[in-house]
This record gives sequence, C-alpha cells and structure tokens, in this order.
Amino acid sequence: MISQVVCLSGGVGGAKLVQGLSYVVNGSDLIVACNTGDDFDHLGLRICPDIDSVLYALGGLSDQQRGWGRRDESWTFMAALKGFGGPDWFNLGDGDLATHVLRTDGLNRGKSLSEVTLNLAQALGIDACILPMSNGPIATIVNTNEGPLAFQHYFVREQCQPEVTGFSFDLIEAATPQPDIIRALGNGPKTVVIAPSNPYVSVDPILELAGMREAVTSSGAPIVAVSPIIGGQAVKGPAAKMMRELGKDVSVLGVAQHYQGFIDGLVIDELDATFAAEIESMGIQTLVAPTLMTDIDSKIALAEHTLGFAESLTK
Amino acid sequence: MISQVVCLSGGVGGAKLVQGLSYVVNGSDLIVACNTGDDFDHLGLRICPDIDSVLYALGGLSDQQRGWGRRDESWTFMAALKGFGGPDWFNLGDGDLATHVLRTDGLNRGKSLSEVTLNLAQALGIDACILPMSNGPIATIVNTNEGPLAFQHYFVREQCQPEVTGFSFDLIEAATPQPDIIRALGNGPKTVVIAPSNPYVSVDPILELAGMREAVTSSGAPIVAVSPIIGGQAVKGPAAKMMRELGKDVSVLGVAQHYQGFIDGLVIDELDATFAAEIESMGIQTLVAPTLMTDIDSKIALAEHTLGFAESLTK
Repeated sequence: MISQVVCLSGGVGGAKLVQGLSYVVNGSDLIVACNTGDDFDHLGLRICPDIDSVLYALGGLSDQQRGWGRRDESWTFMAALKGFGGPDWFNLGDGDLATHVLRTDGLNRGKSLSEVTLNLAQALGIDACILPMSNGPIATIVNTNEGPLAFQHYFVREQCQPEVTGFSFDLIEAATPQPDIIRALGNGPKTVVIAPSNPYVSVDPILELAGMREAVTSSGAPIVAVSPIIGGQAVKGPAAKMMRELGKDVSVLGVAQHYQGFIDGLVIDELDATFAAEIESMGIQTLVAPTLMTDIDSKIALAEHTLGFAESLTK
Repeated sequence: MISQVVCLSGGVGGAKLVQGLSYVVNGSDLIVACNTGDDFDHLGLRICPDIDSVLYALGGLSDQQRGWGRRDESWTFMAALKGFGGPDWFNLGDGDLATHVLRTDGLNRGKSLSEVTLNLAQALGIDACILPMSNGPIATIVNTNEGPLAFQHYFVREQCQPEVTGFSFDLIEAATPQPDIIRALGNGPKTVVIAPSNPYVSVDPILELAGMREAVTSSGAPIVAVSPIIGGQAVKGPAAKMMRELGKDVSVLGVAQHYQGFIDGLVIDELDATFAAEIESMGIQTLVAPTLMTDIDSKIALAEHTLGFAESLTK
C-alpha cells in the first residue's frame, strides 16, 4: 500500500504543518519539497531559509516566540560583524550559522544541496525526507514599484515595504526538479499537500519548475492545499499585502482562485466558513477546520484533518 | 627621521608586545609581520590565528582570562555544530566567526590576505600596519614521533602531546614575503623587534621566506628579540616542550643559540639574569628586564625597554 505524502512547503508557516504531518505520516513516507527560491549567498555563505525552517521544525529546534530561527539562539556574531562594519541587514544567529557553514562547506566540496540537506536532517534525527525543490540555483525576484528586488532584499532589507507588481524566478528555466520528488510523485503517492505557505513566492517557484506541475497532477493523488490566509490576513509574512497590491481578493477566495484548476481540495479556517460554497462552485472541495497552528497539538490536528480530507477526495 | 619599527610576531605572546609597541610607536610607523604558517582552512573558513591575535590585541578585543580569542565571546555555534555531528576539535567563538567569515568572503572575492587584514584592522580603528608575512598559503608542519602533523592538528587537536622531531613549512618555496614588509625593511627602519613568540613555529616561518632574513639583516636596524622563555618555561604554548624534545637548552640560552648570528640583542627576564654573561659571550647584547606581560602597563613597559635597548645598539 502506497502511503507516501508529498508536501510542497515554504518556510515558517509551511514548516508548522510539516511538523504536524511528521507525527502522523510514517518516517520517510513524508517527502517535503522545499522552496529554494528564497535562497541566497550572504557573506559567502549559502542560506536556505525555507529548508532551515523545516529542518529546525522537525528537529525540534525552532524558536516559538520569535517565530523564526533556532531556539536558545545568541547574537554575538552579529555584534562582532557590526563592529567590523559588515552588512547587518540580515540577522544570522550564532547557532544558525552552524547550518550555513556546514552547508556551504558541503556544497564547496561538491555535494548537492539535497545531499547536504539529507546529512543535516540525519544529524538531527529527522526521518522525514526533506528535499530542496531543485539542486540548481533559482532566485525569486520580487518586481516592485521600486524595481526588481532579490527576494531577501525585498523581504528582510526592505521589510516588504515596496509595492509588488509581480514575480519572476531567475534561472528556473535551467533548473530541474530534485529527482526524488519526481520519483515520489511517480510512485503514486497517497496525497499531495500544499502547505499554508505564500502562494506567490513559496509555492509557485516549486510548481514553475519544468515538469513539476505535470508530475503533481499526473501523480493520481488528491491535491489538497491549506490556506495561508485566515480571515483576510496572512498568519505571517507578506502574502495578504501581495494579494492586495496585485489586485486579488485578499481572502481564501483569492487563494482558491490562485490554485483553481490545479488543486482538488482547500482547507479553510472556521473564520472563513462563509466562503466554502463559492469555493466549491469553483470546482474545489473545501474542508473547514481550525488552521491556526499555535502549538504542537494544533499542528498535528491540522495535519490529521488535511490528510483525512484528502482521503475523502481520493480520485 | 626614520621612526618605523618592524616587529615579527606570532600569536598571543607576540600580540601582547605588539600591543605595548602600539602605545609607544606612532600609528602606522609600527609594521607587524605576522606568522601565517598556523593558518588553515576549517569548515571552508580561512583561519589565521596569529593575525587575529594581533588584531584583537590592538583592537582592544582580546580575552584576558582565557588568554586567546575575543572577550565577551559566546559558544552557541560550537554547540549547534556538535548537534550536527560537525568537527568540534577546534573551538570557534561566535564573535570570532565574524572575522573568519569576513576574511573568507574577501579572499573568495579575490582580495589578498593583506587587503583583507587591512580592512579588518581599519574597521577596528587600528593605526598600526598589520601584515601577513606572505599573501601565499604556507603551512607549518610539525614532524613528530607519530608522523607529520599540520600545525593546528598538533597544537589543538593533539594538544601538543606528540614528541617533536622537527618542522617544515609547506609551500614556502613558492611564497614571497608580503611586499610592504620588504619595503619597510628597505626604508631603513629604526628597529626590528622579534616578539616573544615561539622561535620554531612562529618566527622561523617568517624568516624562512625567500629574501626575508636578508631583508632584515640588510635593513641596517638593530635586531632585538624578546625571549619567550622565562625561568626555563614558556609563558604560553609548547616552546619549552619543543626545545626539550629537540635536545636544546630549555632556557634563554637555547633562545640565544637559536637566534645567534642573526640578532644583535636579546631581552631576557630578571629571573634569567645569570645567563646574561654567557649570552653576551655569544655576541648578543642583553637587556635584563621584566618580560612577563600581565597587564597593559607591563606590555608598554616592555615595549619601551625593548626599543630603548635597541636604540643603544644602533649599528
């Protein structure tokens, strides 16, 4: 019996659901395809924020208060960097640096990003299969009223202030999906889950990879997304602001419209139950469930709801 | 009037005297030629322990209690590295990492080690001219009864336990001295100081560089060394153990023998005053002075004694 679950995920919000899924899906049957469009080189270090969010979540290392990075973190490196007049717009925690240094060293020694990620995950005792969407470099560009911005420049340096006009994904034409993702999709997985991540900058880069969208739709598995929008707001990050600036419905309706024709089901929050009928009329089944993940119990519950809902949709 | 002082220095002990010198020599008239034979690549980072000891000393950042590295240091990176099963034999402080990351990034962008070092020094407000002995890679090898060991493997990983049989300096034939050092020596400096650093693994690599020994001797300046051995013991590090294992006199006599024919004067500690006559009979002038540097006053005093002594020797 095929029991694999493939989850397409961005960073923090996605990582929360992935953590929930890791409690209800058996070990390496959980395959996580992580967005790498946010990845960038900083001070010569390769930084992969979404992979790291998933690693830290599954490794039990996430900081719950701050909402990103590692718990028990310290910031002596940043203080010293500032003392040298180094670039301080991107915060690198001291413990977080170990991830970046080990990854960069591995890549420089000729390992692929997936090998390096696997090594990091194994060292943390993670059984789930955490994979970069691609081993090739891809860079999400946020087009704004101030011109195109590399994702981290938009997200961190400019704190999402510029008005968004669209997105592009540099180097995506030359990149191929990580082969194990395509293999898992080809094996007839039980479910494909789209985590509650930013549709534009976390999920779209994954789906825009050559062959990825086709591999998902032809997998035969129900495709279920969890809305990252609750009550017209993003739980975290600029998704709602982006939707508004792009002239979309800033609601679960906008999410449904974005994924229309691709997903089979959408999990929406109880706050958004009134939208269910309209979404269903778009050919998307809905499940109304609590989608705000505030602790491990709510993560596991949402994972269970999502997988149960998917099972009810089995094609 | 030429007032430049060229100081050949290793790490911690040398850095203390360099700090003293920086109080009595005007700004960039102090030229420090730092040993780079201890430098190595670790986790993809270029680590230059002796340059960093001098940078931290002159930048007022040295940790006085620990005796190496930066004050107000934290160790979260090492804890995270261990959590990933990474190599933990070499301690990298969180603040110290900023130096290594900035240096490595600069080198990877095509800067020379002297440019990178200059940038770091300027950022710390250091006026003295801190230079690597060479921009080329040179690796001190400690030959031992357990076979040849890269310096940091001998020094840190093996904690200086293996018995030393000799030394070699990999790649030194292909390396050239840093040009500003040769230029300063050619300008007729006032004094050449050999800091109280390990003669075998801190000073010899500098002097073994093609043309360096000749540039020092033909500079016309008095060459004065400060003994790293006090009362038959090294203040810090394996110098005394090495002397014993190499069958040398473990005393200031051994130091004098090592530098005989090269230096004009040797500063020895009051504890070793009885050796003065024998050292003078070897053609080396001596100054007896307190050489243990425990605080900034004793560093400055030793710097003043050393320069005054050198002046009395003017050729």
